[in-house]
Amino acid sequence: MTDGIVFERMALIGIGNLGSSIARAVRERGLVGTIAVADFSDRALARAAELGLGDSYDESPAEAVKDADLVVICTPIGTYGAIAEGIAPHLKPGAVLTDVGSVKQAVISAVQPHVPDGVHFIPGHPIAGTEKSGPDAGSGALFEGRFWILTPLEGTAPEPLARLETLWTRCGALVEELPAAYHDKVLAVTSHLPHLIAYTIVGTAFDLEEQEQRDVIRFSAGGFRDFTRIAGSNPIMWRDIFLNNREAVLEMLQRFSEDLSYLQRAIRWGEGDKLQELFTKTREIRRGVIEANQARPFPYGTSGNGNGK
Amino acid sequence: MTDGIVFERMALIGIGNLGSSIARAVRERGLVGTIAVADFSDRALARAAELGLGDSYDESPAEAVKDADLVVICTPIGTYGAIAEGIAPHLKPGAVLTDVGSVKQAVISAVQPHVPDGVHFIPGHPIAGTEKSGPDAGSGALFEGRFWILTPLEGTAPEPLARLETLWTRCGALVEELPAAYHDKVLAVTSHLPHLIAYTIVGTAFDLEEQEQRDVIRFSAGGFRDFTRIAGSNPIMWRDIFLNNREAVLEMLQRFSEDLSYLQRAIRWGEGDKLQELFTKTREIRRGVIEANQARPFPYGTSGNGNGK
Repeated sequence: MTDGIVFERMALIGIGNLGSSIARAVRERGLVGTIAVADFSDRALARAAELGLGDSYDESPAEAVKDADLVVICTPIGTYGAIAEGIAPHLKPGAVLTDVGSVKQAVISAVQPHVPDGVHFIPGHPIAGTEKSGPDAGSGALFEGRFWILTPLEGTAPEPLARLETLWTRCGALVEELPAAYHDKVLAVTSHLPHLIAYTIVGTAFDLEEQEQRDVIRFSAGGFRDFTRIAGSNPIMWRDIFLNNREAVLEMLQRFSEDLSYLQRAIRWGEGDKLQELFTKTREIRRGVIEANQARPFPYGTSGNGNGK
Repeated sequence: MTDGIVFERMALIGIGNLGSSIARAVRERGLVGTIAVADFSDRALARAAELGLGDSYDESPAEAVKDADLVVICTPIGTYGAIAEGIAPHLKPGAVLTDVGSVKQAVISAVQPHVPDGVHFIPGHPIAGTEKSGPDAGSGALFEGRFWILTPLEGTAPEPLARLETLWTRCGALVEELPAAYHDKVLAVTSHLPHLIAYTIVGTAFDLEEQEQRDVIRFSAGGFRDFTRIAGSNPIMWRDIFLNNREAVLEMLQRFSEDLSYLQRAIRWGEGDKLQELFTKTREIRRGVIEANQARPFPYGTSGNGNGK
């Protein structure tokens, strides 16, 4: 193998924000020999070609995965089952099949039944990304300093797993292995519920009178503006996430609603102590987050710089 | 009056984030002759002196306001009543009394009864600020490009009002007049409810098992990290805001809870269309926010640059 190359031939299925970031990341670092790009959208494919993100471009994932040593699925998770079924007969023995989906159990359920013997299916999820979409949105630096979770199934062969970890590590990521169910639970808290909340509050704000709506937009500094940023995320992707991490999301949502009612009651009855108690506790948590090095500006990680705001 | 000076003598009561920003903003632009600083905290007062934020420093607001042409109250709003009562006998006739509190009706109720005849009470609220606290946190650029709302009471004399508007305009702010009740309603949506939500979700996340807590912190990129930033805000300030804008906050909270239940139900029953419908609508709203020029990076406004993520 050429020095530096981790996988000779990579197939990227889906060339949006994450797919294009992976293409750039591996290319900039000389980690892959050739990249075959597949996407259902003509426009994304054409744009990817204009940007020179790959070496070949195909509407058909089945074509793109032929002879690929590594296949990365980067489409909305609702499409995974059909994609897996379509590419399965064309996967090379010994190929590694992975993904970047934000939920893992549902992905495993959709994909695993189609994986042929001899192909190494290793589900994955980079904790990175922006609210933007499309092949122009990506960056080769996206994964630097970010966690990349792998949720390998029992019995996964160690060598392909190590090779996949090497690839993402060389893209600057911090690779960690977690059980799939645990991943889904943690992500429900750190990502899925916050997004749902953001979507909801923006919607609530816009069920107001027209003049109020205009002023809500005009005076939306700070808190609300952050929520609108989150709520500008890809609708399809997020619909699929909520539908595919139902249990964990519903559990956290129920807890959240109970906690919110507690505060609503405290406000109604003027119980300032209860409010102050919570707000002081959460301030300590914020300090913990900054210390844990996750507070640097999003979306692009900065290599080596752990300080943040 | 010296060219450029808008108020000869200003008294700042409270020298935290906002108070210190005002001190810097007016000083850097030569808008005020002398600044008298008052604060209940010895430490803040000493630090303000070290930073040279004012020309005199006093624990007693009553001392600081003597001969002041403009008095700006920048303390937590729960203190306003006591402060107003204490300074009232010492205010110079013709002085302008204003504030920076995030709620207006409660501030008016607390302060107005103490305002002597001949003193011009003009409540105000700059839509600016960061989650940080204390005299080091402020910046003279904080108000650039930000809205500064004034909620003048009926019968306010036009010349002092115009002079106050001039002062904040020269600090770079966009001054607007609104009725106090309307201000409180809009701010409940754009700021108070989002903060309450953020506080709640961070609290919910931390009622988990210890290992989960650690992983929530470690994997808290994107959504959750934004919430922890908001939830790192000053606990006293926010306790007072919720206690003092009760009705508007409870109204919006009730609407929010109903909307959240709607989504919870859609998730439970796998109704993808409903989710996608909301998420697409909120994406349009995000675009509206960016266009309305409120999407530039917080906390410091940048003069003239309306683009931002």
